[in-house]
Amino acid sequence: MSHLVECVPNFSEGRRMEVVDAIADAIRSQGGRVVDVQADPAHNRSVVTFVAEPEAAVDAVMAGARVACERIDLRRHQGEHPRMGAIDVVPFVPFADLPMGVCVDLAHRFGARLLGELGIPVYYYGEAARNPERRELERVRRGGFEDLREHILEPERQPDEGPAVLHPSAGATAVGARIPLIAYNVNLRTTDIGVAKEIARKVRASSGGMPNVKALGFDLQDRGLVQVSMNLTDYRVTNIWKVFDAIRREAERRGVEVAESEIVGTIPLDAAVRTVADAVLEPRLRMDQILEKRVWAAE
Amino acid sequence: MSHLVECVPNFSEGRRMEVVDAIADAIRSQGGRVVDVQADPAHNRSVVTFVAEPEAAVDAVMAGARVACERIDLRRHQGEHPRMGAIDVVPFVPFADLPMGVCVDLAHRFGARLLGELGIPVYYYGEAARNPERRELERVRRGGFEDLREHILEPERQPDEGPAVLHPSAGATAVGARIPLIAYNVNLRTTDIGVAKEIARKVRASSGGMPNVKALGFDLQDRGLVQVSMNLTDYRVTNIWKVFDAIRREAERRGVEVAESEIVGTIPLDAAVRTVADAVLEPRLRMDQILEKRVWAAE
Repeated sequence: MSHLVECVPNFSEGRRMEVVDAIADAIRSQGGRVVDVQADPAHNRSVVTFVAEPEAAVDAVMAGARVACERIDLRRHQGEHPRMGAIDVVPFVPFADLPMGVCVDLAHRFGARLLGELGIPVYYYGEAARNPERRELERVRRGGFEDLREHILEPERQPDEGPAVLHPSAGATAVGARIPLIAYNVNLRTTDIGVAKEIARKVRASSGGMPNVKALGFDLQDRGLVQVSMNLTDYRVTNIWKVFDAIRREAERRGVEVAESEIVGTIPLDAAVRTVADAVLEPRLRMDQILEKRVWAAE
Repeated sequence: MSHLVECVPNFSEGRRMEVVDAIADAIRSQGGRVVDVQADPAHNRSVVTFVAEPEAAVDAVMAGARVACERIDLRRHQGEHPRMGAIDVVPFVPFADLPMGVCVDLAHRFGARLLGELGIPVYYYGEAARNPERRELERVRRGGFEDLREHILEPERQPDEGPAVLHPSAGATAVGARIPLIAYNVNLRTTDIGVAKEIARKVRASSGGMPNVKALGFDLQDRGLVQVSMNLTDYRVTNIWKVFDAIRREAERRGVEVAESEIVGTIPLDAAVRTVADAVLEPRLRMDQILEKRVWAAE
């Protein structure tokens, strides 16, 4: 089997489905195999997930970017989610055994073409960052389009690719390389939102909890539950089982039961295998022991 | 992607590797994709795991059977494992979404050819059983070659395919259809073999434990541990997490710690996903959420 790369571009359009569809079609037309499209009207934002041969991936996402650049005008865009561009964020993610270096290279090639062909300045983040201060996407994107328009001339806000001038309607784009993120929630059988917020604080990395965990507490009012909502930014360090087990213990200490958990969207097979390995104390379990992996990966 | 079937023939040869290799090569020559070969000299037995398109699977295993029939003589075979044929057991197993009915049909077609082309009588077991008494392989195989040779004329021992006459050197063959078995062990931090035997009795189906669990207690003397060694015969009913969790509780009640567990050989992706789902209370988790499954299964 040939190697594949996953690419998860985020576009600042989640209401006009004809635009989202046109973007996905353009990606498909250049060899991108679209596996998921999520359009969020509240955030007015959509996320396309596709895989492609590395040689085709840049052409595919460029085709999508060209449509987005023509049809999305950030000056008229409204939505809750922070964003700085019509093509807001473009991460390249290794699929299966693809080396990260290939993703970094693709990010830089795509960034150069975004500037050269569409005149959109680029900020590199994640493993593709050229400035260590820009590894975290949140720092690159803070303040969004309107803030960046005002401050782009300041030295620490200047793009990595292109002059300090935003594209008038399409803004700027964050282009990166990263391992797959896992969106994971644990729901607790209580209506006390304080419990969820407290446990979120206990487990998240930023307040000294578990590494590579972002966590917030939410109220699920209609269900009579509260939620610890997480992003696991490196499941190789902190996987689903570890965070579930830690939250369950914290909840038990407070006399609260875990109602259920939710794995949102897709996860890599490797993350599922590591979860099994940790849950049943089977540290030698390998992806190669999954029969489908042996058969499909060999095709 | 085309549908595939898994086939796991067991041959009564585990010492002469040239014979095992010749069998595997014959399977490959007819379109079988061999993913694993395990030869066990103590049991003098080998297990070949291959996948194939359903149309090719019968030809592939017939080719292996022909070599085994020529080169293995049960009258001179010694080994600890119960066996009744040179081609001892041939289960057809659904791979991914293949319906069980296809496996049953392949088992019956293969059985008819074993008799017609090689003169080997056949007993059908598992989902392919024609006699409800023969669903369990153990019942079909009890006493092995030597016992069957004496008793084959008795009504309840007569083959499903062919007259009541064993092939002189190759004996008889059990041909079946079943879901994948999982070989799974849990190792306990104690040298008291009684604990392993007691817990095995608690969890196995035959003594009123968990359904579809076979379990025995063993001593791992060289490691200072004891082992609950299991076969999970239907992971959809009792999966890895459920049995691990039950054994951990039983061990805790006896003041014993689980040292580790071992998943032996391959497991289907579905079994890994169900284990994650149960371990982290995520009942809605689906195989389709494994990114590789989406991509590879679509190829």
